[in-house]
Amino acid sequence: MAMTGVLRPGHAQLRVIDLDQAVQFYGDVLGLVETGRDGSGRAYFKAWDERDHNSLVLRKAKTAGIDHFAFKVRDRSTLERLESDLRECGVAVERVPEGEMLATGRRVRFEIPTGHRIELYADKEPALYPGQLRNPRPWTEAAEHGIAPIRMDHTLLYGPNVNQALGLFTEILGFYLTEYVTLPDGETKGALWLSCSVKAHDIAFVEHPEPGKLHHVSFLLDSWEKILRAGDILSMNKVPVEMGPTRHGITRGMTIYGFDPSGNRFETFTGGLQSYPDQAPIAWSWEELPSGLDYPQRKLHETFLSVVS
Amino acid sequence: MAMTGVLRPGHAQLRVIDLDQAVQFYGDVLGLVETGRDGSGRAYFKAWDERDHNSLVLRKAKTAGIDHFAFKVRDRSTLERLESDLRECGVAVERVPEGEMLATGRRVRFEIPTGHRIELYADKEPALYPGQLRNPRPWTEAAEHGIAPIRMDHTLLYGPNVNQALGLFTEILGFYLTEYVTLPDGETKGALWLSCSVKAHDIAFVEHPEPGKLHHVSFLLDSWEKILRAGDILSMNKVPVEMGPTRHGITRGMTIYGFDPSGNRFETFTGGLQSYPDQAPIAWSWEELPSGLDYPQRKLHETFLSVVS
Amino acid sequence: MAMTGVLRPGHAQLRVIDLDQAVQFYGDVLGLVETGRDGSGRAYFKAWDERDHNSLVLRKAKTAGIDHFAFKVRDRSTLERLESDLRECGVAVERVPEGEMLATGRRVRFEIPTGHRIELYADKEPALYPGQLRNPRPWTEAAEHGIAPIRMDHTLLYGPNVNQALGLFTEILGFYLTEYVTLPDGETKGALWLSCSVKAHDIAFVEHPEPGKLHHVSFLLDSWEKILRAGDILSMNKVPVEMGPTRHGITRGMTIYGFDPSGNRFETFTGGLQSYPDQAPIAWSWEELPSGLDYPQRKLHETFLSVVS
Amino acid sequence: MAMTGVLRPGHAQLRVIDLDQAVQFYGDVLGLVETGRDGSGRAYFKAWDERDHNSLVLRKAKTAGIDHFAFKVRDRSTLERLESDLRECGVAVERVPEGEMLATGRRVRFEIPTGHRIELYADKEPALYPGQLRNPRPWTEAAEHGIAPIRMDHTLLYGPNVNQALGLFTEILGFYLTEYVTLPDGETKGALWLSCSVKAHDIAFVEHPEPGKLHHVSFLLDSWEKILRAGDILSMNKVPVEMGPTRHGITRGMTIYGFDPSGNRFETFTGGLQSYPDQAPIAWSWEELPSGLDYPQRKLHETFLSVVS
Repeated sequence: MAMTGVLRPGHAQLRVIDLDQAVQFYGDVLGLVETGRDGSGRAYFKAWDERDHNSLVLRKAKTAGIDHFAFKVRDRSTLERLESDLRECGVAVERVPEGEMLATGRRVRFEIPTGHRIELYADKEPALYPGQLRNPRPWTEAAEHGIAPIRMDHTLLYGPNVNQALGLFTEILGFYLTEYVTLPDGETKGALWLSCSVKAHDIAFVEHPEPGKLHHVSFLLDSWEKILRAGDILSMNKVPVEMGPTRHGITRGMTIYGFDPSGNRFETFTGGLQSYPDQAPIAWSWEELPSGLDYPQRKLHETFLSVVS
Repeated sequence: MAMTGVLRPGHAQLRVIDLDQAVQFYGDVLGLVETGRDGSGRAYFKAWDERDHNSLVLRKAKTAGIDHFAFKVRDRSTLERLESDLRECGVAVERVPEGEMLATGRRVRFEIPTGHRIELYADKEPALYPGQLRNPRPWTEAAEHGIAPIRMDHTLLYGPNVNQALGLFTEILGFYLTEYVTLPDGETKGALWLSCSVKAHDIAFVEHPEPGKLHHVSFLLDSWEKILRAGDILSMNKVPVEMGPTRHGITRGMTIYGFDPSGNRFETFTGGLQSYPDQAPIAWSWEELPSGLDYPQRKLHETFLSVVS
Repeated sequence: MAMTGVLRPGHAQLRVIDLDQAVQFYGDVLGLVETGRDGSGRAYFKAWDERDHNSLVLRKAKTAGIDHFAFKVRDRSTLERLESDLRECGVAVERVPEGEMLATGRRVRFEIPTGHRIELYADKEPALYPGQLRNPRPWTEAAEHGIAPIRMDHTLLYGPNVNQALGLFTEILGFYLTEYVTLPDGETKGALWLSCSVKAHDIAFVEHPEPGKLHHVSFLLDSWEKILRAGDILSMNKVPVEMGPTRHGITRGMTIYGFDPSGNRFETFTGGLQSYPDQAPIAWSWEELPSGLDYPQRKLHETFLSVVS
Repeated sequence: MAMTGVLRPGHAQLRVIDLDQAVQFYGDVLGLVETGRDGSGRAYFKAWDERDHNSLVLRKAKTAGIDHFAFKVRDRSTLERLESDLRECGVAVERVPEGEMLATGRRVRFEIPTGHRIELYADKEPALYPGQLRNPRPWTEAAEHGIAPIRMDHTLLYGPNVNQALGLFTEILGFYLTEYVTLPDGETKGALWLSCSVKAHDIAFVEHPEPGKLHHVSFLLDSWEKILRAGDILSMNKVPVEMGPTRHGITRGMTIYGFDPSGNRFETFTGGLQSYPDQAPIAWSWEELPSGLDYPQRKLHETFLSVVS
């Protein structure tokens, strides 16, 4: 098969300090669709155009950050094979039973060298996607409720040992490197973008002393004009915007970043290169990081490198 | 690995009646980059943002049409495996030696039940992509020479037995069905869109009595505004435009269609759904085909169903 | 003063056959804001971003068409001066008292040689424009209810004697010609675009044997992407779309045309040249009318020349 | 007449420190068309879509800044009338003879209370506009040479006594106020946007202690996507970008700002409100200036208030 192994980012579970505020933000400002609450109080969301039950889970906690980031794999036998491959490579794997999350099958959880919990699963129940599987319309009213991204797209994680994480993702999980930034030494990779598909990034890492940190979860929009609209909506709602609208040199995508009420950074973006595993990764030197980050201004936004949750 | 087997459309070889006219059209109007001519007189092109040596090959002939459509596979062992799988399933496979085409390794060629020649290959030399692999710019001047698509993206082929072709592509080559149209009987699939990636279509078929016919080769643009610009450029150059700018209901993409000087139809398009193999295909009924084709006008352009090369 | 005399199109009064259907169409599909009903049953609308009380008035009648098209002039003394200038030039002028229309001051009405009623007025009460006059937001939720144009922009009228109308509009009312099409004789102007501002057209005329006919009333959108969205919304609502999305050669604007439930044609458009009265008008020959109408396709949509209400 | 008096911004004469660098910047990066050099060495430019001979004049000098900003008036009798009106109001008026600038008739020059030289003229010879007055194409190749704005659009000037300038522009020259910012006292207008047309601004002023300062000259683009492209081109050419791409709250337009090699700020922008003289101006409070300036980020860029040339 052409698409095998890990298919795509499936869901992110975030910690939020005030759940009601977070639900209002992700539901009405970002414009995701709430699909349920579980017994432990977690709130589940999906993007209007996603077919599975959830792609974002919010858990009330004392501090912001990411609990885990999960990928959907092709099927159950793939899940078993990957679990076994991970164990063989010495990765400690934990099983999370079906039902621990709403609508989600059993998950395989492991910690990667950057201190983040990654999960794999094969099953998630479909969400209602009314009328969109037969003679669908190009969009529904939900596509204009808040920013209304098409899907949860990827995450950028900050932590130590990103090159060990690179090994794990490429050698065991079948990802490939699409772009990277070298540190001032000109050799060591300090920031990595990885894909399991033709997307420019399904996950990304930046070297950082503290383990397990979230830089952002990213949501896909349709067009550069929708980035402008996202900026309007964020401002109308007094959401702190860190950067953008602008274009990243890295990945070539267009973007705007802000912070949820708990201080978790999010991105809404569009565009960007499509990548294939037979292509060499694109290299960025440390000196050109400013143009990689904010191409028009060639500016290194200081908070972008330092503020994480 | 996550991306295995067949990676993507690699090249299309088209027959053109007047080579000079065709080279002028594909070079200056569509805005591809000419990368070479071979001993038999074929002209080779790539899109400005493609990395491999060629994605379109023009061969002078008495009639227009498509000689073959080729896919790049992950690597040589994949090529061997797929060749062996095809033979095992009773598909007659022909080997085309390295060097038959410029910059292209050995190819595996076979005819599918619709009467088209499909090819697989693992190797194509990279083209010059100056400065774009290290601290790249988001685009180069070549991105504004003519319509200047980003890449050759997919083809739509007309011929008989499309459901047998579906079987071959899904069962042997690892593609999956993303959308389809049922005939007036409400059951038989008469038009098929297939993906080997997360694209809405890497290849598509429409049931048609004559075998081996080309409906169009499609080229990807960046935005809806680039579709408008494509329309401007086509008109400035007196190219016959059949349809568009408009939105397809099927795939949700935005599009404009025209004909090259030999009468081969081409599409330039943008947008569209992203698909995954775990998702059910989207079904279109025969009655809704007009909105599937030209969503704003809900119009069945008669030539779209009848004119092929 | 720089902007004197006639300022802009103020309102159009249309005849509709089924008022409820029309109100639903203009309110929910086109997405205008209903601002009132008067004693005679007429329904009043404005665009979300317009400041005056109304720009579209619907009157129930046996046949579709336009009752009158009205321009707002700078102030009352301007109204008096223009009334007097019209009389001096032998134009029969009728006074319509304040209060005949909701929120609208006295109007000066006259028939032009094409058989249409044109009106001038100086006063219209402002509509609610909540929060938009002090620290406004770039848009409000109403900007996404239906197609939601920014304003009623211009009209195109069909009738005889368009060159006499040209004289009246330029010599008495201070308009100037921005573009025109010559008939097959290469000399006679058969279609005229006129401006009283820097817009490409505040009113336009096409020579036609029947007097007093409406070709369309046009509404302004923000962008080419909003034209696509208009096409989506029209199709979702099964509104007959005649043409577009496309670009006009004439005025250079981007456009989509459809019909309201009574058969009155409307346009939603964006872009286009900005004009000034010191510039020579742009001339179109009869042979190039197809590219003037539908630039990408260079196509003369037959209904565009023949169907009026 | 509807459009009388002052028609539009006609040209700006800027001082540049290195003429060759400036010519390269305005010709190849901003993408204006050079139309001539005069005996004193000044270089003349127009935008590709402008019809008059020039809209930007560069003069080599020791310091950057603006020599004068000139408006085209409707005709010679208007010029005489405005000259006489200015004198009557006690404004010292100087006559600059025809021929002092290439292709430009006699000018009426006066200093306004902010310390800037403003000029009026009635005549400027047309530039070549090949093929665009008869069956024109929507754009020409020149529309993609560099950033390639459509026209020089307006200027923002910094100096003292802006409210006196407001009086002069509204009472003598027929402009009207479209938007303003009040200072922290909540009453005094400290920044003013003025129009002589339906544009959101033909000229603007900010209160500033030093007289005669240039904030920026602004050039119009077609779309938000062209703003992105402007950002790409500025970055590719290492031009310092101060702000953007973003949306202004004030005027609602989309924008990017940078500096020419001499340190003169320029803007390329698109969109924005259309205004009419019968409408009340929009008021911004001092506290909301950040959202007026950079709407998505609600950020007061410090240099925007302090750096002028």
